[in-house]
Amino acid sequence: MNLESEQTYFMQQALLEAKKAYLINEVPIGAVVVHEGEIVGRGHNLREWLEDATVHAEVVAIQEACRTLNSWRLVDCDLYVTIEPCLMCSGAIINSRIGRVYYGAPDPKAGAVTSLYQTLTDQRLNHQVEVVSGLFAEESATLMKNFFKAARKKRKIEKISWYFCS
Amino acid sequence: MNLESEQTYFMQQALLEAKKAYLINEVPIGAVVVHEGEIVGRGHNLREWLEDATVHAEVVAIQEACRTLNSWRLVDCDLYVTIEPCLMCSGAIINSRIGRVYYGAPDPKAGAVTSLYQTLTDQRLNHQVEVVSGLFAEESATLMKNFFKAARKKRKIEKISWYFCS
Repeated sequence: MNLESEQTYFMQQALLEAKKAYLINEVPIGAVVVHEGEIVGRGHNLREWLEDATVHAEVVAIQEACRTLNSWRLVDCDLYVTIEPCLMCSGAIINSRIGRVYYGAPDPKAGAVTSLYQTLTDQRLNHQVEVVSGLFAEESATLMKNFFKAARKKRKIEKISWYFCS
Repeated sequence: MNLESEQTYFMQQALLEAKKAYLINEVPIGAVVVHEGEIVGRGHNLREWLEDATVHAEVVAIQEACRTLNSWRLVDCDLYVTIEPCLMCSGAIINSRIGRVYYGAPDPKAGAVTSLYQTLTDQRLNHQVEVVSGLFAEESATLMKNFFKAARKKRKIEKISWYFCS
């Protein structure tokens, strides 16, 4: 595979993870960690499912990658994620020494890579990460929009049924 | 217990966790999560032990608290930690909706509460956290200094023994 088709493939895998989250009613964000052309960690948001605030897609993928490589240092690893990482996930990316992050759509409300903070390129920290944004941005954002639209509709129906049935 | 002795007790418990990390050769940082006067989560740094970049003291304590309360929302919870949280842990604190953080000593190189960033009080984010710093600061900092001093000494001895024995 050439570089471009490799990036396309891995971002599609991150999107596949996001869709898994969608199917179990989680905010649809997915991620994969890649080492020497192989996926060594994958994850999707499991916050509601596991009732755990820390299990965002990136953290789950990083934890699996650490287990696969038997090392907390994910040297020569790239992370692909559908939505711009939050503060916690950006911190996990820095702490695990990931070299490059590809993300799909920005998160203007909580993004800590470009939107609210630029943590991954902060020269004061002991590790900096290369950032590539915009890969499958539309697909990533559309998945989120559809999820929140469906959630609002569900809440509306629940309110109406509560009104008529209680 | 009055408020002051409560804070002293919980910070001593966080220090106890930090000492557990010290004993297994981990950077000695400890944390506890408190809900209605009870410890519902405790943790110490396990990065080297588990070969996992995400298992800082705060994350371990938050994950245990989520399991104990069976909720990712740690409403009405306080977190006590010996050293100022990094970006990842500050993000985990915000994501889990913890109300107040007590930390001991600052971390000028990676601290994301006061030193490099002021993430917990950032009004742009969807949750803000009250911050109390300086509780048992000297004990917390001394534990870290002793750890790194011993680590440097160990590395020196290893170098000398390598020189004479190889």
